[in-house]
Order: sequence, then C-alpha cells, then structure tokens
Amino acid sequence: MAKEFVKEITSMDEDFAQWYTDVVTKADLIDYSSVRGCMIIRPYGYALWENIKTELDNRIKATGHENVYMPLFIPESLLQKEKDHIEGFAPEVAWVTHGGSEELTEKLVVRPTSEVLFCDHYKNIIHSYRDLPKLYNQWANVVRWEKTTRPFLRTLEFLWQEGHTAHATDEDAHEETTRMLNVYTDLCENVLAIPVVKGQKTEKEKFAGAKFTYTIESLMHDGKALQSGTSHHLGSGFAQAFGIQYTDQAGTLQYVHQTSWGLTTRIIGALIMVHGDDRGLVIPPKAAPTQVMIVPIAQHKEGVLDFAFDLKEKLSKVARVNIDASDKKPGWKFNEYEMKGVPVRLEVGPKDIENNQVVLARRDTGDKVIVALDELEAKLIELLNDIQINLYNKALKLREEKTSVAATMDEFKENLVGNPGFIKSMWCGERECEDKIKEETGATSRCIPFEQEKVSDTCVCCGKEAKQLVYWAKAY
Amino acid sequence: MAKEFVKEITSMDEDFAQWYTDVVTKADLIDYSSVRGCMIIRPYGYALWENIKTELDNRIKATGHENVYMPLFIPESLLQKEKDHIEGFAPEVAWVTHGGSEELTEKLVVRPTSEVLFCDHYKNIIHSYRDLPKLYNQWANVVRWEKTTRPFLRTLEFLWQEGHTAHATDEDAHEETTRMLNVYTDLCENVLAIPVVKGQKTEKEKFAGAKFTYTIESLMHDGKALQSGTSHHLGSGFAQAFGIQYTDQAGTLQYVHQTSWGLTTRIIGALIMVHGDDRGLVIPPKAAPTQVMIVPIAQHKEGVLDFAFDLKEKLSKVARVNIDASDKKPGWKFNEYEMKGVPVRLEVGPKDIENNQVVLARRDTGDKVIVALDELEAKLIELLNDIQINLYNKALKLREEKTSVAATMDEFKENLVGNPGFIKSMWCGERECEDKIKEETGATSRCIPFEQEKVSDTCVCCGKEAKQLVYWAKAY
Repeated sequence: MAKEFVKEITSMDEDFAQWYTDVVTKADLIDYSSVRGCMIIRPYGYALWENIKTELDNRIKATGHENVYMPLFIPESLLQKEKDHIEGFAPEVAWVTHGGSEELTEKLVVRPTSEVLFCDHYKNIIHSYRDLPKLYNQWANVVRWEKTTRPFLRTLEFLWQEGHTAHATDEDAHEETTRMLNVYTDLCENVLAIPVVKGQKTEKEKFAGAKFTYTIESLMHDGKALQSGTSHHLGSGFAQAFGIQYTDQAGTLQYVHQTSWGLTTRIIGALIMVHGDDRGLVIPPKAAPTQVMIVPIAQHKEGVLDFAFDLKEKLSKVARVNIDASDKKPGWKFNEYEMKGVPVRLEVGPKDIENNQVVLARRDTGDKVIVALDELEAKLIELLNDIQINLYNKALKLREEKTSVAATMDEFKENLVGNPGFIKSMWCGERECEDKIKEETGATSRCIPFEQEKVSDTCVCCGKEAKQLVYWAKAY
Repeated sequence: MAKEFVKEITSMDEDFAQWYTDVVTKADLIDYSSVRGCMIIRPYGYALWENIKTELDNRIKATGHENVYMPLFIPESLLQKEKDHIEGFAPEVAWVTHGGSEELTEKLVVRPTSEVLFCDHYKNIIHSYRDLPKLYNQWANVVRWEKTTRPFLRTLEFLWQEGHTAHATDEDAHEETTRMLNVYTDLCENVLAIPVVKGQKTEKEKFAGAKFTYTIESLMHDGKALQSGTSHHLGSGFAQAFGIQYTDQAGTLQYVHQTSWGLTTRIIGALIMVHGDDRGLVIPPKAAPTQVMIVPIAQHKEGVLDFAFDLKEKLSKVARVNIDASDKKPGWKFNEYEMKGVPVRLEVGPKDIENNQVVLARRDTGDKVIVALDELEAKLIELLNDIQINLYNKALKLREEKTSVAATMDEFKENLVGNPGFIKSMWCGERECEDKIKEETGATSRCIPFEQEKVSDTCVCCGKEAKQLVYWAKAY
C-alpha cells in the first residue's frame, strides 16, 4: 500500500494568496514549468477549461460567428500601423529575432492579441457591403511579457478566444459590442455562477486603440475585483490605419467599424476565488468535469463494486459521473474530491444496497441526504440545479456584503480597510482624480456601471460636480 | 447586383501544384498572411479542421488519454538535454531573445514539438508504478522554421495534437505506439476516406530521439506520397536524460518508457490531393462542414423559400445541412459548392414542390437523382454513406494503380517517370543504398510496411541480399 495522506491547505482567512496557490496545485489544476511565468495546465484544469470553452464556443456560434485561425507571429511593421495599439502593447511583447541559425531581416512579435492580423486579412476580403458583417473568432494562445505572474491570473502565455468583427456602421459595431458582453455575462452568471457588474471602462483603462471598452467585473472572496471579460468598440481607427473599406449600396467607399472581445483562462482564477473554501475548490455543476463522484464504501465486500459501476453507467445518462474504485480509503477519497470541488459525492456501501438507497453529499453546503434508488436520477438532477443556484446566490450575497458606498476619500479608505470590496463612488470624469485615487488607495476604477445611481453629488476625490457613478476596487 | 462570376481553376493534369493553390484559395480554405510561411485558416478550412479534431479527440479520449496544455516556449537548456533531439530540431526553430525591451538571460525556443516539456513535467509527477501509465495529449500550435512553405503541407506554424505517454515497460510503450497508429489509421480510412500504408520508418527517417517511428503513408493524385501521421516509441532515452524514474512493485527504481505521436493540419492537404478534381475540393461526408447544400430554384416564386427552409430544419436532424438563399443565380451556387466539395446538393423548385420531390446531386460522381419527399431522409443517409465508401474505394483504386514493383534501379527510375507513385522494392537495410536512391531518383523510403512481401531476392540498389520490402516514393 502506498502511504495515504490527506492534503492540507492554508486557511483562506489566514493567507488568501497562499490558499490560492495551495488550491491550484493540490486540486491538480496546474503544475509549475521550467519556463518563467508559464504554467502547465494539468488534465483536471484542462477539462475545466474545455467545458468553459465548449459553453462559450456554442454561444459564439449561436450568435452567428465563425471560427478562424490567424498566425502566431506579427511582423514589427504590421504591429506599428495603429499608433495607440503599438504604444499599449510594445512594452509587453516577446520578440522572435532568429529563425534557425539566421537573424531575421524583420523582427516578429509573438501575438499579444491579433487585431492587426485580422485587419490585414479584412483588407483583402472585404470589398462590398455584401461582405459585411464579418463575424470571426479564434481560440488561441497569446503572450504578454509580464514581470510578476500567478497561475491563471497573470501568466506570460495564456489561452483565450478573441472575437474580431467588421460592420458597415458604427451602430452595428456598438450592438455587437453589447451583444458579446451579454454573452460573457450569460456564461459567467449561468454557467460559472459568478455574478458580474457590467459597465464601461474609463478612458485610462480602455483597450489600446479602442473607441471604448465594455467590461464585466466580478468580486473575489478576498474583496479584490477581477476583470472577467472585455468587449471593445474599435470604431474605424484600425480601418483607417489599415485601409479596410467597402463600397456601400450607393456606390460610395466607406470605412468599416470594428469590434474585438476576449475571455481568457483567467476566468478559472475567478471561479476558484469566488466559490472556493477552506477545503479547496468548489466547481459549479455546469462547469464541473465530474459532477458526481461515486465513492464505494467497504468495496471489498461482495457486490459493492458491481453495484457502484452499474450506478455509474445508469447515472451517466443524466450527469457527468465518475467512480473512484482505487484501494485508497474512503476518507482519503472524500478529502480528495472535496479538494477538487466535485459538486456531489455519492456514497454507496453494503447497508445502502440492502436498503435500496445511496447517500448524496453536497460539496457546497456539506449536507448529506439519503436517497431511495428509484428516485435517484430525479433527485440528482434537482440537487445539481440547487447547487448551481445556491453557488450563484452565495456569491451574489458575498458581493453585496462587500460592496459599499463612499462619498469622501476618508470613507473610501476606511471601507477599503474595514470591508474590502467594490466601492461605489461618484467621479468628476477627470483622469487626475482617477490617478490620485489609485495612488492614495491602490484601488482602480473597475467600471462605469450601465446601471447608474447617484450616491452623492460630488466627486469622491476633488469634490467638484460628479458626472458618473464608478465601481472602484483593488484588482487582480 | 454584385458582379456574378464563376471561379475557374487550373486543371490538375496540366499543373498539379497550381491546381492545389487554386483549390485552397478558391474554396476559401485559406488566405495568405503578411507573415512569411504562415497561413490564415479561413472559416471553411477551420470548420473542416474542427471536424477532424473532434473525430480524433473522441478517439484519443476513448483510448484513455487526457488533454493537457504545456507552455509555448522551451528554454534552450531544456531542449539540449536529449542529444539526438536537439540535433534534429535546432536548425529549424524560432528563437525568442527579447521580452519587452530586455534581452533574455536565456534564449527561448518556440516549441517545434514538446517532448522535453512533457519530460520535465513527468519527472515531477511520476514517482510510483501507481502513477503509470501517464496518457497525455495536447492540441497546440508549433513552429518549424521551414525555407519553402505551402498551405497545409509545410508551414512555419501549424496546428496539431501531440500525444506524450509514459509507461512502466518497453512492451507497454510498444503497444501504445501501435494503438495510436491504429487510431490514426481509423481516422484516415473511416472519416477522411484516405487509404494508408502502415509501417516503420527507416533509421534515417525516424524521429530525432526515438527508438523507432511508425507511420501511415498516403498517396496523392499526382503520385507523390504524404506522411499522414507518426507514432514514436521513444524507449527510455528521454527518461534517462531527464531522470524520469518510478519505484516498481518490488521497490526498485526504474526508468519509464515513453511514446509520442502527432497528426497535423497537413492532413487537410492530403484530403485535398486525394479526393479533389478539376471542379475543386471533394470532401468525404464524415468530415464535411456542410454535408448537404440546399439550392432553391426560382426562389422568388411563392412558397419556394419557405419550403426550402422547412426542408433544412427537417433534414438537420440527420445531416449537417445548409441553405444558400442569397440572390445569386443557381448556376453560380452549383459551381461554388462544387468548388467547396459539399458532398450533396439538394435542388428544389416550384415543379419539385408540386410533385412532392427534390433533386439530389452527388459531388463525387455528378449523378443526379429525383427523390420523393417521404423517402428523403432515408435516401439522404444512404447517399452520404455511399459517397463515403465510394471516395475510399476510388482512392484505394488510384493508389493500387499507382503502386508498382521494381527489382532493379532501371525499373525503379522507369516507374517513377511512367507511373509515379509508390514503388515497392527490396532493400538491404544499408543507409548507403537509401541515400543513393534518393540522390539518383528523388524518391525517399516512405516506410518498411508491416505487411511484408518478397518481390525479389536482392536489394534494388546494391544487388546484395535483401532484408526487407520498402515503399519508396517522391513525397511532400
């Protein structure tokens, strides 16, 4: 027998950062690699990403988009075509300077994002109003040369999808920007059980080269915010830089209007930090690689394993079911699948078989319930739904508790210490105040929410007339 | 109205290379990019890849493998750990030397393949015989710095899956190598309708660092061969270089035995060159993004479009069905979907509706058949199956016609000119003869087939005693 042990993790209240590191490694989501800032996504982590990917890909296709694949590399001259864009990205790109043993005549950037590649292609394939809209998406890896990295949250290389669309009018592009933000919201709220605040980024925080950026922001257990998906209205700036024009119905040459939008493996970090607890990961059923883990009790006794495998086959019609029939002790298994955040554990032993029943244990509440075999499928579906809803409601409650209002800088700072989370404060709209708030408190503007309220008359920072409500927070 | 035109392509007998280029661009599979040697995979090409990917991924998972994701970059020192491997790949890698504005202290290679990354990870996670086998796969992009490139066939960057497994014994690794070659064979023959020859690569042609390499080789319309998938038995060479050891049941430290296997976007090139004809692409139904294209006739007449859309909905339950209801002429549409290789065209006009029938046209033979509405679903399923089988049989017949036997170098050279294709010749097993054949004829050893025959007693090149039958061909 191999030595059996129970994995221990740091308590989240004691040291949230260490808790996070413990969870990502001990739930077998990732391993560190020999490449600085790049992680290895292990089978369990990748299965989670595959589920998220499938759910999002279905939604992207259902809204009329097509998948394509663009090159990994961008020639330096191409990246430089849109001035704001290159300024934003140049400091954080990886440069390929040699191929084989030869120095390249033009350096290549490993794509940090692919706007310029799509623009270069759109210039070739868009000619007439009949060619619009072009609704493209790609699933890809991108690289940004970050100084400090953390698994999922900030890595040199990450996986994502990036949508890139071209439209006849500014209004069409605006609609698309909103549509895709709503797709991201649907994914976060209804699959990942993560409530989000929808809004617009300030000028300072918007995407390099965009007209404006929409964002969804979520709140982690430690009161820090995490940008969970962004959708950019690019206007016609890129189109002008690249010469992407079409002939409209009247025969006039017009520039296209573009959008781009992305969601990354970062969202797995959000899922961990929104739902996790001191026993490890908690995965909402709709995203869980395994929704039900069967743990046979006293499996050496005759009939137990056969019974458990039959159950697996039967239940696989209604859920993603797995079984651990290894010779490890049930206690070890309980701990292991709690660590891995499997929504439901199904225990079945000789006594249960005798009584035509099994035990279902919920990961989210720890509650156990005895269920008769003839009700099992129906109860299981009900239970998975309950857990999905409960996780969303718990996360929403947490966010509400951690969302406060501040009318003055003193209040702002007090809240940040006393109840870290979103702070709703009015803002004059000036960059100076935004910079000052960050400098003095470490909090940044997360978004100008679509649902505006007036929580005071004046800017929380300068005291001048306020223009807008802003959500502020320290952020990942 | 936009100008309507019929796309023309070069005849394959006239100029096969130009025919290929015409097909990949005019069937909208790819576009050229501003990045040397990198292609843009357009929606139709990517949908084809997605189908191939799904079919292969299902098979990879069904054989017990799990998907993971490894970093894009490999530090120079890591790549150098296995001597043969680095020698094989160093001349064709892209080097990242700068991150942001700083020069890196250690250069990074953009992965040409990921053996060393998997080894580095396996060293961390394999300790006991209980940890074996490890059956991992990843879907990724890789880069090889090729001088001459052609869409799908040879590109600087390409997409693939790479399996990497670790086993307790040499026999287990050998079994895995065979298993995955069989998975590739199943995909090629039963999904892509491409017959393959299974065999082993010579020492010269095997993977850098492998004990031996298994391969499947297919034959293109022009008589050139294309390596369509390879499966490598890595032995314990990498394990020794990286120190990947496990404690066996007796408590002794042992090295693991490894395999790796890959299939790339290159297979799309094979599909094009095996099945295509002078009207463009021909896609086997099981791989086709659209299996049935509905073309309404006289669609301005009342009821035609409604009827056609109802058909689409109804038939979507049994096949991947699309409809072109644009205002382009039916003749243009016929040509377009023939170019795109859609297996079945369904024509429906006022007369058909009156007679409760539709017309089905096969892409592979050009045959048209009138089908009564109440038999349509059954007939369609039957027709798609027929086309799938017919394409395989046609390809097999072509390969057989283009496979010849040569006992002498004169025969060998005559065959290569008179009937280019596979040449079956005996070989003494010496590298010298293999090199000489390539030098004199341009043909390379494709594989030592598993199904051995004795077509003569002596080596086709040196006349000494022959050891094995080898398939030779000029190759992509």
